[in-house]
Amino acid sequence: MISLDSIQEAHNRIRPYIHRTPVLTNQTINDRTGAELFFKCENFQKIGAFKARGGLNAILQVAANQEGKAITTHSSGNHAQAVAFAARQVGLPAYIVMPRTAPQVKKEAVLGYGAEVIECEPTLEAREQGVRDVIARTGAVLVHPFDDERVIAGQATATIELIEDAGTPRPFDTIMAPVGGGGLLSGTSLTTHYLSPETRVIAAEPEGAADAILSFRSGCVEKAPYIKTIADGLMTTLSERTLAIIREHVADILTVSDEEITAAMRLVWERMKLIIEPSSAVPLAAILKNKDQFAGQKIGIIVTGGNVDLGKLPF
Amino acid sequence: MISLDSIQEAHNRIRPYIHRTPVLTNQTINDRTGAELFFKCENFQKIGAFKARGGLNAILQVAANQEGKAITTHSSGNHAQAVAFAARQVGLPAYIVMPRTAPQVKKEAVLGYGAEVIECEPTLEAREQGVRDVIARTGAVLVHPFDDERVIAGQATATIELIEDAGTPRPFDTIMAPVGGGGLLSGTSLTTHYLSPETRVIAAEPEGAADAILSFRSGCVEKAPYIKTIADGLMTTLSERTLAIIREHVADILTVSDEEITAAMRLVWERMKLIIEPSSAVPLAAILKNKDQFAGQKIGIIVTGGNVDLGKLPF
Repeated sequence: MISLDSIQEAHNRIRPYIHRTPVLTNQTINDRTGAELFFKCENFQKIGAFKARGGLNAILQVAANQEGKAITTHSSGNHAQAVAFAARQVGLPAYIVMPRTAPQVKKEAVLGYGAEVIECEPTLEAREQGVRDVIARTGAVLVHPFDDERVIAGQATATIELIEDAGTPRPFDTIMAPVGGGGLLSGTSLTTHYLSPETRVIAAEPEGAADAILSFRSGCVEKAPYIKTIADGLMTTLSERTLAIIREHVADILTVSDEEITAAMRLVWERMKLIIEPSSAVPLAAILKNKDQFAGQKIGIIVTGGNVDLGKLPF
Repeated sequence: MISLDSIQEAHNRIRPYIHRTPVLTNQTINDRTGAELFFKCENFQKIGAFKARGGLNAILQVAANQEGKAITTHSSGNHAQAVAFAARQVGLPAYIVMPRTAPQVKKEAVLGYGAEVIECEPTLEAREQGVRDVIARTGAVLVHPFDDERVIAGQATATIELIEDAGTPRPFDTIMAPVGGGGLLSGTSLTTHYLSPETRVIAAEPEGAADAILSFRSGCVEKAPYIKTIADGLMTTLSERTLAIIREHVADILTVSDEEITAAMRLVWERMKLIIEPSSAVPLAAILKNKDQFAGQKIGIIVTGGNVDLGKLPF
């Protein structure tokens, strides 16, 4: 189990490399929801997303323990940038396996951090084979995007800061995070359990990638009935590890449609002047959809990132 | 002349009604410019722009001194919202004369603050006649968007916060603001003169509304050779009042093209995850265009606002 100590050690380990991102509020959105919302702005984090935390916590330890001569992962999203960024901090080469269909802007971001991009076919099999090839060739260590205790402990540090900066004197009634593979959600729920046990953790998930809610109910890692959502960071299924933590420490999972996600994203852009990616808008969409459930509550929201393609906006 | 005392009094007067907006930095943009930039984020200000400061400072005094039973102004932009917002704070009715061609979203924002919108033809004559009609009908007091010492003192307060939060231990080499009517620029230059006299103030202006640079050189209020710019907040000419302050306390005015403004705006959106309006990108565009002049400098930039129409983005 991931202890409070290991999360606090992660925070101390990564602190020199990350931003302490601000916690922002907005009167209009409070009025519109009937709740008091505190947005932990990880869109301002290094690489534009909370994933920098988990990548750093894992890779700083790989380097300190001399576990390998290089780092590898497969990702088409923010984890690719997080690994490339973290590997550069410790001076290790990084080999990122990316589907050839990934946006050019994301490949360029990874290259910009000095990593090597290995293109593969856009299937999970091809991605995993690509990583095996890299390991055989270079002796690299795999840093999985979420099925890794060090990554989870790193993601858990955002909630330390949220609670320190806005969780007093009145504690949060609820802390919310979106759920994809569950690395952020399980970390968020662990930190909340340790530091603010009176607070409920509630997750939010797109209807078009509704696997976590099924797994949460059945206790087995389930696949989504279908995958079709604007929230491109949330398409992954849980792992056994993240599901176990989530079943123990998360109170509920709510689902929202792409229309509701887009409306919530637009509300944050227009009223808070923050660029957030669709995945980041999923918790607010769930609050707007379930106002009665959240009325009068003090709610913390992890805003996961701000990496969007400005040429392909949904509005 | 507007004294330091009057600016500090303005700050104390408006403080309960405004946000103390953050000063943000970005490593990528520092690397790209070769300078150290500090962005004073007035896009996070009430009504989404610094104009809340000047409107409040004027209207709080109108109310305290019982100078009138209502407030009026003509504006198609952020000043309209600022006056509507400030009037509501003091419980005075506001009558905002807006050209019928103003975007519906801006009219709705003004209506949302409880003000009455009076539509007129999109000419300066029609706007001024509309205000005269309101005054005759209601006894309202006009709050001009920039040609007003109380408004200028209000706008000047953003620079107090910028200097307090980021102007030590090393003072700014340069503080930059865009220039339209000159209310913000004259206030910025006065505060800098009083609180950080070693700092130069440099303004930036669109090529497609290049009146201030002509006025700055000739000493008379000049019109722009032509008006065509994406920076819709900067189309106004100076007044005698703002020109006099600017000629005394501003070191230089630089001009940039709409292409340069759009590129700078996109850079801030993509790298800082901040929604800023085109006018706000004009100073950064000037730095990117004149890198040699600014290399190695510590520079404060007033980010004026974040009110953009998401349906009409230039990228």
